[in-house]
Amino acid sequence: MNENQITVVVDAMGGENSPEKTIKGCEIFLNNNSNVKLIIFGKKKLINNDFLNKHSEMINFVHCEEVILDGDKPSSILRSKKESSLRKAIEFIKSKNRIGFVSAGNTGAVTVLSTIILGTLNNIKRPAFCSMIPTSKGFCIMLDLGANKESNENQLLQFSIMGHAFAKIKNISSPKIAILNIGTEEGKGKGYLQEAFNLINKSFLKNDFIGYIEPDQITSGKADVIVTDGFTGNIALKTAEGLSKFITGNFKKIFTKNIINNIAYFILKKDLIKFSNTVNPTKYNGAMVLGLNGIVVKSHGSASPEAFAQALKNCLEFIKKDINKLIIEELKMVNFVNE
Amino acid sequence: MNENQITVVVDAMGGENSPEKTIKGCEIFLNNNSNVKLIIFGKKKLINNDFLNKHSEMINFVHCEEVILDGDKPSSILRSKKESSLRKAIEFIKSKNRIGFVSAGNTGAVTVLSTIILGTLNNIKRPAFCSMIPTSKGFCIMLDLGANKESNENQLLQFSIMGHAFAKIKNISSPKIAILNIGTEEGKGKGYLQEAFNLINKSFLKNDFIGYIEPDQITSGKADVIVTDGFTGNIALKTAEGLSKFITGNFKKIFTKNIINNIAYFILKKDLIKFSNTVNPTKYNGAMVLGLNGIVVKSHGSASPEAFAQALKNCLEFIKKDINKLIIEELKMVNFVNE
Repeated sequence: MNENQITVVVDAMGGENSPEKTIKGCEIFLNNNSNVKLIIFGKKKLINNDFLNKHSEMINFVHCEEVILDGDKPSSILRSKKESSLRKAIEFIKSKNRIGFVSAGNTGAVTVLSTIILGTLNNIKRPAFCSMIPTSKGFCIMLDLGANKESNENQLLQFSIMGHAFAKIKNISSPKIAILNIGTEEGKGKGYLQEAFNLINKSFLKNDFIGYIEPDQITSGKADVIVTDGFTGNIALKTAEGLSKFITGNFKKIFTKNIINNIAYFILKKDLIKFSNTVNPTKYNGAMVLGLNGIVVKSHGSASPEAFAQALKNCLEFIKKDINKLIIEELKMVNFVNE
Repeated sequence: MNENQITVVVDAMGGENSPEKTIKGCEIFLNNNSNVKLIIFGKKKLINNDFLNKHSEMINFVHCEEVILDGDKPSSILRSKKESSLRKAIEFIKSKNRIGFVSAGNTGAVTVLSTIILGTLNNIKRPAFCSMIPTSKGFCIMLDLGANKESNENQLLQFSIMGHAFAKIKNISSPKIAILNIGTEEGKGKGYLQEAFNLINKSFLKNDFIGYIEPDQITSGKADVIVTDGFTGNIALKTAEGLSKFITGNFKKIFTKNIINNIAYFILKKDLIKFSNTVNPTKYNGAMVLGLNGIVVKSHGSASPEAFAQALKNCLEFIKKDINKLIIEELKMVNFVNE
């Protein structure tokens, strides 16, 4: 096997409408990235054989008897389902180079299993979910979006370094970093946020650090990297998801209310779709579980095949640009005191 | 003075474009509520004399030399500006009946001064900001939206009782109560949320308690009362505010892009305004600072005169229906253990 060969490992079984959805996503991805090798873990009898045969050159398939379901609790997953596609796939990427893993499955299971099997990078205590969020200037990078329930100031400093590296991978040369808080004056909010503020301000990131940002400014584009604990980040993310659906749902009702409104919609359609494309969740699908000894990308469970293909594409980019190497280099520039 | 006379006390000086904005708001309010007495605290030379003279029967004016600004820190406000309109107005309502107070001023100052001057109700440790939030079924009631940085399980139980009473005042007979969390299964999220879950489940509220709700369901209408700590509530509220502005701003750009789009907008205008009215912040302006020995309503600082009038109207409703009496009755139904 070619040493430079890039491999993306896929858990075919996770997420809604899987494995059909994930397999379709793999096909879309392969059509645009013909030189990437895929290793698909899943339940043989549920996978379309024609697809596997058609792409046999670029796909290896690994049969796994067990499947982790969305309802499975992380605590029980650790003790049982040792033959699941999710666990086997993560075990496969351990200690290998130029490889990454994508799953649309149980978020808790992906986090717990990848943390335990792969371990975290040196000086990283906890991994973080990191994703791109649309803003009026393009996108920002936000973490942690829910890998942890609690984080302290040292972990927030680690998140800021990881987010900084992520932004560089996404071609932002001097990413502006901010901490999410309920006010912007120094001393606002919880104690560990102020501590994190001080730590970042003393680190090599100080020139890129712009202080606190309030949630009503997330979409403003003022910050390229928004650092938060996982509970708060998840609250913000899900609030935004719910409100988006609420507003767009109401607009759809208006557009389809009668034939006249429908004509008006037809006039606006092109521009509405253009806007919708700039904030399309498909475009940003694939949160990285940052901070692990390995590249792990979590697709949204309800992602479409196109969105799943986007998660595979993100994974490919992280492998190609070696995001973890960059994080390790940046971590060396900080003196971590006893935590 | 008539014993049943209802009085609303107004800090004329707080908020953007005040006192012009607040005075206009008072006028709008008086036009619809001619039998309510207003006592306005403010800087005499900045207030329109014609307005005071015209309504001299229903308005008393109290001159105050000092004004609390939005930038003043709560810590310094306690020591200085003892002659401010905000402080004098709160002192005025202390220990009186059928009276309430409205300010569009510095949020921290309103919270700190009203808590210290009025005190909290028996068995309420901390007041909470409580407001109505539009949902697909009308509105829900959410608290705490930011009066506190941290809350424990006992305070969340107190918030649930206060929110329950607020919902009853708003004519919801059996308000469904939920705790905001990042997951809905028992045991999800932070420890104090699980403790609050258990406390509510053991209280008289248990039949109205529906467990956890995730932020993407806030607008669903599944819960009538959403209980959260002030940090989390403020994060959710501000995320929603920012995203609303982001989406509506982009729609406005599309509608005004060219003459054709503008015509399409004209066709949709009536329905768009109808939707916009159902979620209009003006309609819901006036968060109550719940849990105090007195009725204190905080208007948004950037509220329009119409929105400020709405805050006055809310205050009037809380006085008329005696929300604090209802809260005190409900608090008696819970055994508060040592906190």
